[in-house]
Amino acid sequence: MNEEQVLQRIASGAKPARLAAVGVHLGIGDDAALFKPHAGQQLILTCDWSVEGTHFLRDKHPPDAVGWKSLARAVSDIAAMGGTPRCYLLSLALPSTHTGRWLTEFLGGLRRASRTFHCELAGGDTTRREQILINITVVGEIAPQLALQRAGAQAGDLIFVSGRLGEADRGWERLQRLRGKVKTNDRLLRKHLYPEPRLALGEWLAKNRLATAAMDVSDGLSIDLMRLCTASRVGACVEVGSLPILPDVAKPKAVQLALHGGDDYELLFTVTPRKVRQIPSGFRGLPITQIGKATPGRMMEMRAEDGRVHRLKPGGWDPFRK
Amino acid sequence: MNEEQVLQRIASGAKPARLAAVGVHLGIGDDAALFKPHAGQQLILTCDWSVEGTHFLRDKHPPDAVGWKSLARAVSDIAAMGGTPRCYLLSLALPSTHTGRWLTEFLGGLRRASRTFHCELAGGDTTRREQILINITVVGEIAPQLALQRAGAQAGDLIFVSGRLGEADRGWERLQRLRGKVKTNDRLLRKHLYPEPRLALGEWLAKNRLATAAMDVSDGLSIDLMRLCTASRVGACVEVGSLPILPDVAKPKAVQLALHGGDDYELLFTVTPRKVRQIPSGFRGLPITQIGKATPGRMMEMRAEDGRVHRLKPGGWDPFRK
Repeated sequence: MNEEQVLQRIASGAKPARLAAVGVHLGIGDDAALFKPHAGQQLILTCDWSVEGTHFLRDKHPPDAVGWKSLARAVSDIAAMGGTPRCYLLSLALPSTHTGRWLTEFLGGLRRASRTFHCELAGGDTTRREQILINITVVGEIAPQLALQRAGAQAGDLIFVSGRLGEADRGWERLQRLRGKVKTNDRLLRKHLYPEPRLALGEWLAKNRLATAAMDVSDGLSIDLMRLCTASRVGACVEVGSLPILPDVAKPKAVQLALHGGDDYELLFTVTPRKVRQIPSGFRGLPITQIGKATPGRMMEMRAEDGRVHRLKPGGWDPFRK
Repeated sequence: MNEEQVLQRIASGAKPARLAAVGVHLGIGDDAALFKPHAGQQLILTCDWSVEGTHFLRDKHPPDAVGWKSLARAVSDIAAMGGTPRCYLLSLALPSTHTGRWLTEFLGGLRRASRTFHCELAGGDTTRREQILINITVVGEIAPQLALQRAGAQAGDLIFVSGRLGEADRGWERLQRLRGKVKTNDRLLRKHLYPEPRLALGEWLAKNRLATAAMDVSDGLSIDLMRLCTASRVGACVEVGSLPILPDVAKPKAVQLALHGGDDYELLFTVTPRKVRQIPSGFRGLPITQIGKATPGRMMEMRAEDGRVHRLKPGGWDPFRK
């Protein structure tokens, strides 16, 4: 199979009507794609690596989950800004052994994600490599001035998180132990393999100007909260007793998973005290939990259930840390 | 060095005033970038791999040339559409041994290219990998209806190409033989290491609606012309005697380089007969050469200098071909 044929396989799922609906006027097959944004909108641009050995294992992760998650991870950044995804570019490096069934299943998962998020394939580039490497760029839109950013939290703002934390990490533990076929009705496995970017929540927060700052939890709460606080020039105190931990895991472990587990793609956001009553405890079935407070100074702290305050050290995932 | 520090190094060259000038309102450091297109413009989106072993060699290519060329290759796709580049996203995978001097020089070359093409860094993603992998997405703009596409050539249209073909391939041969430091005053080496996307020519062709179809020559004339003809549903006959070959290379070799040499990033375009007089033989110092004609049917042919017609087989570069 040559490059042209690989690109044809990738492009073959494109439906002109769906492309036109999101503003893509020229898709795969030319030097570049043409996209017409809605009048007056700002564009949100983000790119994400998904590479074998770091983000997934060739022999462990079903190819369709690799496809779904590659797009979901990048779309989650659009959700974190409160935007609406429109289209994406796929850069794919494959071994020549993987241009058959693996590619078919990978594209199947990717297309399912694409339809679910209303985010259409606009372009791409392929190359041959011994390892499977994926890079996805997503283009989203948002009305000017509404984008949620990491900077903006003030001391005294309340910190919220969606969903339950540590689910994806727990799912990853299960996948590692698993022999045989992946059961997709396992909730934790599903969360690891097929994360769902919190698009509706992000859009709702942005449209109603409810969050002073926001980001998605991709590397783990402890490190991502530190990033939000650094951008906002505040500190934070997390209430360990308030964390939305996994109910069926022993507590010390469940707290560790909630603080440092990666890959949850939940939203982390801050709300000024006078708007706190507008934040429901659930949004379309998704739990929303107040987990702490932004503080003056720059300390990252957590208050244990016995009332003692400890330093909260970032323990999330960082590919360059030795 | 951790991921945050690598990203900081990458972001440290960003100048807010330059970002604002191209429409980037939020650059590296948040979940995603914010970009405001000019009112009414269409966006051009393109992404390009530049990976070690395929597009460059770690021990042969100067890091600043890797930086320059990674961006130039993607910007060339914007030139091929007749557009103006605005901003780019950098996805970088590096071994931990390359986050020092190599990264500094790579970023130097990338920034020089960025300033030269007025295309600013808006975002990125990094990961660790034993091999150096680069993926660049470029966002450009163009007025609606003006974008040059591969489809559009009609039988009878004249085929043109900019520059001299085979220079980059010849430069690559020189680099392979080279011992010691790269001489950047060597014209052919420069063409291989620091290609210059034909932005001004592309914009001029688009604005004046002079080309019926266009693309850039990145993999080699023979394969790229076939792509343009396939998209346009025409054939082509190339006049071997008209090819802008290298003057100081023996003829059979020079013709092979011109037909099949990759990496030139010149523009290949077709012009309807009644507009041919508007195409000059040079554009701002760049030769423009008529090399053949689009033909009815779908045959790819070339007429040798003795008048005999041969089939033109695509001989360019394809990473998936075995």
